Amino acid sequence: MAQTYQAKIYVTLRPSVLDPAGTAVQSGLTHMGYDNVERVRIGKYIELSLTANSADAAAQQLDRICDQLLANPVIENYRFELEELAAV
Amino acid sequence: MAQTYQAKIYVTLRPSVLDPAGTAVQSGLTHMGYDNVERVRIGKYIELSLTANSADAAAQQLDRICDQLLANPVIENYRFELEELAAV
Repeated sequence: MAQTYQAKIYVTLRPSVLDPAGTAVQSGLTHMGYDNVERVRIGKYIELSLTANSADAAAQQLDRICDQLLANPVIENYRFELEELAAV
Repeated sequence: MAQTYQAKIYVTLRPSVLDPAGTAVQSGLTHMGYDNVERVRIGKYIELSLTANSADAAAQQLDRICDQLLANPVIENYRFELEELAAV
């Protein structure tokens, strides 16, 4: 029976990749007086719901979705959490 | 004594606000054959480290930083997690 899953996906730049947006935010914070803030990195946070027959099937599909559309595997990492919502 | 805290900040659009980027991603997924995906919402995920005298002080500063720079309180919500890293 198909289940609905709520997915929370975190896409972050790989540590070796420069993050100009994060640097800009850190610079802005310094100018605002928050000079105790460091290592600002900006990523994406995506929520979606999907139906699948099992949590494994949902996770496999999410892996494909992340690799193909949501993340750029060359420069980004991703991870996700799945939560079962309800039977359909 | 000052402590270093690692913060993970999630900025999401308020539920009542339209999310054209999320709609575009959902449309793209449908075209790619993933027609079991719904309610795609795209937000920001920000990591940073900051030093403060206590977790309370760090949380108060993060509230100000989110309100002033990282989130637009009119259309966005935010939440964050703090983790103590090490004494400075």
